Amino acid sequence: MTLRIIATGGTFDKHYNELHGTLGFAASHLPAAIARARITTPVELEVLPLLDSLDMGDPDRQRVLASCQAAPEAAIVIVHGTDTMQDTAAVLGPAVQGKTIVFTGAMIPYAIDNSDAFFNLGFACGVAQVLPHGVYVAMNGRIFAWDNVQKNRAAGVFQPM
Amino acid sequence: MTLRIIATGGTFDKHYNELHGTLGFAASHLPAAIARARITTPVELEVLPLLDSLDMGDPDRQRVLASCQAAPEAAIVIVHGTDTMQDTAAVLGPAVQGKTIVFTGAMIPYAIDNSDAFFNLGFACGVAQVLPHGVYVAMNGRIFAWDNVQKNRAAGVFQPM
Amino acid sequence: MTLRIIATGGTFDKHYNELHGTLGFAASHLPAAIARARITTPVELEVLPLLDSLDMGDPDRQRVLASCQAAPEAAIVIVHGTDTMQDTAAVLGPAVQGKTIVFTGAMIPYAIDNSDAFFNLGFACGVAQVLPHGVYVAMNGRIFAWDNVQKNRAAGVFQPM
Amino acid sequence: MTLRIIATGGTFDKHYNELHGTLGFAASHLPAAIARARITTPVELEVLPLLDSLDMGDPDRQRVLASCQAAPEAAIVIVHGTDTMQDTAAVLGPAVQGKTIVFTGAMIPYAIDNSDAFFNLGFACGVAQVLPHGVYVAMNGRIFAWDNVQKNRAAGVFQPM
Repeated sequence: MTLRIIATGGTFDKHYNELHGTLGFAASHLPAAIARARITTPVELEVLPLLDSLDMGDPDRQRVLASCQAAPEAAIVIVHGTDTMQDTAAVLGPAVQGKTIVFTGAMIPYAIDNSDAFFNLGFACGVAQVLPHGVYVAMNGRIFAWDNVQKNRAAGVFQPM
Repeated sequence: MTLRIIATGGTFDKHYNELHGTLGFAASHLPAAIARARITTPVELEVLPLLDSLDMGDPDRQRVLASCQAAPEAAIVIVHGTDTMQDTAAVLGPAVQGKTIVFTGAMIPYAIDNSDAFFNLGFACGVAQVLPHGVYVAMNGRIFAWDNVQKNRAAGVFQPM
Repeated sequence: MTLRIIATGGTFDKHYNELHGTLGFAASHLPAAIARARITTPVELEVLPLLDSLDMGDPDRQRVLASCQAAPEAAIVIVHGTDTMQDTAAVLGPAVQGKTIVFTGAMIPYAIDNSDAFFNLGFACGVAQVLPHGVYVAMNGRIFAWDNVQKNRAAGVFQPM
Repeated sequence: MTLRIIATGGTFDKHYNELHGTLGFAASHLPAAIARARITTPVELEVLPLLDSLDMGDPDRQRVLASCQAAPEAAIVIVHGTDTMQDTAAVLGPAVQGKTIVFTGAMIPYAIDNSDAFFNLGFACGVAQVLPHGVYVAMNGRIFAWDNVQKNRAAGVFQPM
């Protein structure tokens, strides 16, 4: 089994820009994270434009969909911002067949202390290999169907609707 | 679904003892790792005596088996040293029914730079919720059946027999 | 010799707020950093309101001055934002006698990968014990007199005027 | 002022060898640590054979002495194991004139959580630029003369004799 990992940005992949004192995007952390995970499953990493998911519009979600449809792999992990993860999942849910697609992200960037990013990546890479075909969100150590998930922003956790 | 995580030691949980300059065991890192993962799935953590898996004998493996048999949860992650992980898995494989048990560990301790531990924990916590009942080893981003896995010590990776 | 460390905020002490996805201030990292440094020199930590130094006004700088004047210790480290560090140093420079005051900060927050914060804290804690009385800025492994230092914002380094 | 940093090994520079599960030496962490510190003071890094200081013999200490005597810089930081740091300092103390030499090290390796290494490096790089000529040990946020320092192994701290 080959695993495709699609990077779309989000908190997971934010970098601290030391000249401007801001969090933004630079090169994705995913190549380093994948190497660190010592994954021997073949992995294809596809880096789409890295965006804060609040800045994603429908064309951005369509681009994610197009990548999934074009992918030869049946197991796909999408690293995505948490704020609109369920919106992109809702675009993919009805449109993709024959593949297991798992969205994940992070509450704290990969490069910041106490980040959940690396756990979430592992979790998603695991369940993407095992779940039946479909589109899922994997956060907080739980698996959600794409049409029954929401982010509780006050609590900072994902939960069923 | 409730998840049981059983800590048995191994590289994952080694601490640096600054007075002796050696790696050994102290309090498990798992409570901190679980909190950091922001898991909202209910988790029961069971900390068995923390051992280097090269120091585990049959009574130690029987203790792991007894914990699994006594556990009310059907999904169990066992954090274990990599050197004899497959040996303990081989004790559990024929003996446990009706549960999904996933062994994992780490090549680099949780507290050391570039550790794979947190990814592996996420991976195992994910697949333990999805795999059919049985006993598995999850390392290197792959899932192995308990009776078809070995550690390639020269390469530092797990592979089928 | 007792050392006083005065926390005023700045990049050094910024935290990632996972609910808002922003960098801001929470409890200072300095108690943890001081413990991690295993300092046996007696240390008095004084935490002033934690501010981005771009948000500091003259009353804020006067508060730092007042703390230095009230301090019984002759060796003081001030952790401060880099953007106006030299401005606060310029308030203290002509006003404080009989003490060695060393400003430091960080280009990357203490809690973010690849941070210079802990090195800078060590550097400042060292030279504050040795330099003649006066007010200094210590950044980039260099010591600057308070009246001959500027931040080169394009390069992200401190240099003489 | 140019600063020379001489790496001799010790806890500071130990790496985890994931194939053998042991701590030992590989490439020094110092190039990465120096880059991370954003030092603009010119730095010459000299990497001697990296040794556990318990394995150092008199020829090893003589090699450190020779490096210091050959160095054109007047400010030298020596990264050294803590167990015999004072012994090497005692070789250099009577033998070197016209230079400020500061020994430092770490109780926890640079690459392990909660390490003091980066603080100690900063501390030593600071005081090496300011202290009068002589040979010193800088640990625990304190400066010790070479002939009045000992490691309290039970407490894991340096103190005067």
